[in-house]
Amino acid sequence: MAETVNVALDAMGGDNAPLEIVAGAVDAVNKKDNIVVYLVGDTAKVEAELKKYEYPKDRIKITASTEVIGTGEPPVMAIRTKKDSSIVVGLNLVKSGQCDAFISAGSTGAILVGGQLIAGRIRGIERPPLAPLIPTRTGVSLLVDCGANVDARPSHMLQFAKMGSIYMEYVIGVKNPKVAILNIGAEEEKGNALVKETYPMLKACPDINFTGSIEARDIPEGTADVIVCEAFAGNVALKMYEGVGSVLLSEIKGALMSSYVSKIGALLIKGTLKKTLKKFDASEYGGAPLLGLNGLVVKTHGSAKRKEVTNSIIQCISFKEERINDRIKEKLNL
Amino acid sequence: MAETVNVALDAMGGDNAPLEIVAGAVDAVNKKDNIVVYLVGDTAKVEAELKKYEYPKDRIKITASTEVIGTGEPPVMAIRTKKDSSIVVGLNLVKSGQCDAFISAGSTGAILVGGQLIAGRIRGIERPPLAPLIPTRTGVSLLVDCGANVDARPSHMLQFAKMGSIYMEYVIGVKNPKVAILNIGAEEEKGNALVKETYPMLKACPDINFTGSIEARDIPEGTADVIVCEAFAGNVALKMYEGVGSVLLSEIKGALMSSYVSKIGALLIKGTLKKTLKKFDASEYGGAPLLGLNGLVVKTHGSAKRKEVTNSIIQCISFKEERINDRIKEKLNL
Repeated sequence: MAETVNVALDAMGGDNAPLEIVAGAVDAVNKKDNIVVYLVGDTAKVEAELKKYEYPKDRIKITASTEVIGTGEPPVMAIRTKKDSSIVVGLNLVKSGQCDAFISAGSTGAILVGGQLIAGRIRGIERPPLAPLIPTRTGVSLLVDCGANVDARPSHMLQFAKMGSIYMEYVIGVKNPKVAILNIGAEEEKGNALVKETYPMLKACPDINFTGSIEARDIPEGTADVIVCEAFAGNVALKMYEGVGSVLLSEIKGALMSSYVSKIGALLIKGTLKKTLKKFDASEYGGAPLLGLNGLVVKTHGSAKRKEVTNSIIQCISFKEERINDRIKEKLNL
Repeated sequence: MAETVNVALDAMGGDNAPLEIVAGAVDAVNKKDNIVVYLVGDTAKVEAELKKYEYPKDRIKITASTEVIGTGEPPVMAIRTKKDSSIVVGLNLVKSGQCDAFISAGSTGAILVGGQLIAGRIRGIERPPLAPLIPTRTGVSLLVDCGANVDARPSHMLQFAKMGSIYMEYVIGVKNPKVAILNIGAEEEKGNALVKETYPMLKACPDINFTGSIEARDIPEGTADVIVCEAFAGNVALKMYEGVGSVLLSEIKGALMSSYVSKIGALLIKGTLKKTLKKFDASEYGGAPLLGLNGLVVKTHGSAKRKEVTNSIIQCISFKEERINDRIKEKLNL
């Protein structure tokens, strides 16, 4: 029988907590029989939600916590002072070894800070990056780093490339993933000081399949599997991706509803359009891992719903089964 | 009668030269009677195109040039050695005062370098930024800088903000434009070193209507009119904007053509969808000005067609009539 994967889940984080979080946990344990979820949060609220569902009772547990870290709170201060917050309690379950992973839709800053301070970095990892998957025309690509470490150095970027490659190969299943560096032109001499310094290091690295520069325009085409970038640029790329998608789709939806004729047209295209757009739905792929920590810490969207929560939990199985952190230590000689 | 605006137009630059460039020039002089266009390029080729159209002959002139700078050529070298290229010859028409503006769909790098070396910076402007307009849900926003000066300093960013404000107010007609700084979070303490240093300078500046940070996600919503950013991040934002739009629309188009039923649906929604998508068509707004130069230098998309060329030419009228460069000198105390 498959090894049990113990996942601590922040029941209080995000816009839809605890409702969607609890629902996602229920779906996960109903789908996979080697998962145990520890819902961290307000016991009464979590129990009230759990009562609505059928599920194997021994595989969802509640770990009480009385505080919540808000998205507006300064992260370092919040992690230090709110010792009984769902994020701190959840991360401590990873630190103690009771859980393999911690997942939260809460404050990104607090998760990043807490991940480093509580779960801790793998010895030798300089800066653990946040690495979301983004859907493309041909599949999905990993954008690493997307917000954890602004003003990174070239040595950090090299580690991002190696860790990202391992994640794409063994968790997502892309053989020999193509690694590219985010740049403002395709030529080798293009870029800012950081990119110019990092480029030859990636080119010389035997552990990755480096394919050169990628412009942001080509990311949605799926040209590369792993896109290495400094956190500021990566965050801009990710959020512009999300913003354009959301505005375009809502404008198109508005257009379809604008007249009787277009409403009939909309009915006729609904099925095929839905199928196409599902390809670009990030929630299909679960949350963004923070790579290079002891254990696994995953940040889902603040707006995460049931499906994204479930998929984020299931993602933890491959992470553990494929011994991702051991592979990182091997590949990075740590 | 309105003052004549003399525009030098690179007839050889871009993917669709000279065909679409010449067509755009013809449309412009047919639409506005105070424009004279100097088509710079291979005389025989340009004449062959011009023969196809009716237009006031005295308002399109040909300035011969025998060389073309390719998009792959190192810009500085190309500008220095190809003295008879359409870009160098066109920029010299601005330098000599014969033309008010130069427009090209050719090599961005060569236009940026040539703009500075030949047209020259307004005395006191540290780094002339490239400032494209991008369509949003509510109108259009100016992204400044989008590729001219990587690794900018805070003092450059302050100049970008002031010049961008003037452009939006007097060329595009947005009263008291909202200026925001591109950031990775909405809070004042967020950002990289450059943003943290620039933010208080923008906040303290009495000449602009500074509204704080903007995340890339909110750019397509039209939350700010002028978005100040370092060129690398700006370029990433711009190209991701274009890339997501293009992939999403082509996937939706593919879906609509995938069955008989969806094809009928597509017919019914065609009109309303087209109207909606036109709002997001960058070519409606013309090319990106390079702000802070003597005269006006405009870069259009490499793929620019007739309409974008025409609109870029017409844009030059407001730039001259509104004395944008005088306003820049006043506002920046130059």
